[in-house]
Amino acid sequence: ARTHRIAVLPGDGIGKETVPEGLRVLDAAARRFGFNLELKHFDWSCETYKETGRMMPEDGLDQLRTSDSVFLGAVGWPGVPDHISLWGLLIPMRRGFDQYISLRPCKLMPGTRTPLAGRTPADIDFIVVRENTEGEYSSSGGRMFPGTPREFVTQDSVFTRVGCDRVMKYAFELAMTRKRRKVTSATKSNGITFTMPYWDERFAEMAAQYPGITTDQFHIDILCAHFVQHPDWFDVVVGSNLFGDILSDLGPAVAGSIGIAPSANINPERAHPSMFEPVHGSAPDIAGKNICNPIGQIWSGAMMLEHLGEAAAAAAILDAIERLLAEGGPRTRDLGGQASTQDVGRALAEAV
Amino acid sequence: ARTHRIAVLPGDGIGKETVPEGLRVLDAAARRFGFNLELKHFDWSCETYKETGRMMPEDGLDQLRTSDSVFLGAVGWPGVPDHISLWGLLIPMRRGFDQYISLRPCKLMPGTRTPLAGRTPADIDFIVVRENTEGEYSSSGGRMFPGTPREFVTQDSVFTRVGCDRVMKYAFELAMTRKRRKVTSATKSNGITFTMPYWDERFAEMAAQYPGITTDQFHIDILCAHFVQHPDWFDVVVGSNLFGDILSDLGPAVAGSIGIAPSANINPERAHPSMFEPVHGSAPDIAGKNICNPIGQIWSGAMMLEHLGEAAAAAAILDAIERLLAEGGPRTRDLGGQASTQDVGRALAEAV
Ligand SMILES: CC(C)[C@H](C(=O)O)[C@@H](O)C(=O)O
Ligand SMILES: CC(C)[C@H](C(=O)O)[C@@H](O)C(=O)O
Repeated sequence: ARTHRIAVLPGDGIGKETVPEGLRVLDAAARRFGFNLELKHFDWSCETYKETGRMMPEDGLDQLRTSDSVFLGAVGWPGVPDHISLWGLLIPMRRGFDQYISLRPCKLMPGTRTPLAGRTPADIDFIVVRENTEGEYSSSGGRMFPGTPREFVTQDSVFTRVGCDRVMKYAFELAMTRKRRKVTSATKSNGITFTMPYWDERFAEMAAQYPGITTDQFHIDILCAHFVQHPDWFDVVVGSNLFGDILSDLGPAVAGSIGIAPSANINPERAHPSMFEPVHGSAPDIAGKNICNPIGQIWSGAMMLEHLGEAAAAAAILDAIERLLAEGGPRTRDLGGQASTQDVGRALAEAV
Repeated sequence: ARTHRIAVLPGDGIGKETVPEGLRVLDAAARRFGFNLELKHFDWSCETYKETGRMMPEDGLDQLRTSDSVFLGAVGWPGVPDHISLWGLLIPMRRGFDQYISLRPCKLMPGTRTPLAGRTPADIDFIVVRENTEGEYSSSGGRMFPGTPREFVTQDSVFTRVGCDRVMKYAFELAMTRKRRKVTSATKSNGITFTMPYWDERFAEMAAQYPGITTDQFHIDILCAHFVQHPDWFDVVVGSNLFGDILSDLGPAVAGSIGIAPSANINPERAHPSMFEPVHGSAPDIAGKNICNPIGQIWSGAMMLEHLGEAAAAAAILDAIERLLAEGGPRTRDLGGQASTQDVGRALAEAV
């Protein structure tokens, strides 16, 4: 039987509750579709940081490297500044494993509610393709004249040709597999006048190579407005690290619940492990209460199986999620129900 | 009688249609409240650029400098790249006149519809205070290895202590005048690790000086989501040039129509003219048809009068807008009506 090696990192907060449910459903899928999952558990988190001064051991990435994929919960906890926790664990993984594609489907699921008036599942079904290694999230910058009135800080945004082209190519190839075959580019070339006109240039060049794909582009300000006013306009939306980040939180918000939104951090060449995590964070306010929604985690698990070549198993999980939501199965508070995290996980595992 | 000197710049596209209606209502207010408006007209636009190679004359800012305020329509037209038109007219004004505050009220008006389900005017009434001179809109950056696979571009974000402190101070002072007395900061210090932690630092320091003001902060990604899911959480929202830009398009979208959203670009010290313009752009798709909504322009005129010390006249215009919308007065297509741009302008002038 096929064996997939998975590094499991629950991380912080509700990650510790959602990951076990994710594993429960993955295990059910493995049994039904006849493959093995070889799990390796890692307890790296903000607690590790408090004990050791590091979010993960110095050879952390090497320890993960032998896995086919990483299954992550959430990172971050009050008391540890975000730029330490995230840049000590999440960002190094995305960069060190060159997971240059972040994929975030935004889909209004039957049986759930969107905050938008009069919208149905047919109106909201797009996917954000986010550049995941460069752009506005740079490690180049600094501070001058600290502590004086002249003090200032700078941070370089860095856009490479390689970085732009590969994420755009991925977006166009993805659009080729979809019904509407449309790619929208997020830009801000009217305000950010070095990097964003370059992004537009690369986009135009890539678009010319895909005559079968419809394209358009919007500045990020009005694009955010359109997500609310016209979510039905979008199919594949490609954005820089920051713009992709914004759109892939706004998209799920528009589609109803951030609690069910999944994400994949992919190295398409499979030179390194890819990583799968829900869009939501560690949610300190509800952590430890077993009330968080595990669907974002479970759906991320389905994306992982898809990436590992287990398309049928992935489809079965997605199907189980759709049925549970549409048919009024157990649901957590964020979706208006009373079920526990485990109730939802168990129901989905059974359905698979 | 008091006299205010106004530089009038319709600019491009629908700016040529909205500005005359703005002036019509301002004129009505002047007559009713007994002050004079001394208008100076400027036709600078993308047409100027096509004829002269410049968006405005070399001494353009000096020509405007003798006015108390600038009343602007919209800038930008197909065929002239945005980074030329905007950086040749709009941005130089904001920077040259040190209009470091951009104010953008986001208010669901009675009688208009929001795209959000179940929201009423009481739920959506906040104001975005945007830093308007520095940050991500920088003129520092460049390109290396052009035309080669190694090609890359960079752009510096620049945050100064002066720049952060003055916009934050303005936001806190503004919050003091409002009922809820709350300031929300837009950040992204978990991903953008030089400039944004500094923004947070300055915000914490300013907050400490206003113990009577409630504060919170959100990363821009989840903040955009909250604008959709919980618009009622917000009162005054302060953001950098880019984040403020995004939030002040998303806010009006959430509140129902970008066509009615006003903005003020203010130099609080009154060392230079301030500038008032609607949030919408030049809208080439509907320009020249007399169907655009002039309310964003007219409301911007009210903000201008407020800034010029004509508070009663400003209130009368705002009141006329609220009544027209609530009582089913003439409305343009974007609000579901059939009225022309002039119909709306005339109705508001009469009401004032
Ligand atoms: C046109 C553009 C440069 C401008 C900006 O981003 O500042 C506009 O979006 C605005 O909000 O006034
Ligand atoms: C936690 C943070 C650094 C991260 C990001 O901005 O990339 C998160 O918002 C995400 O979208 O995965």
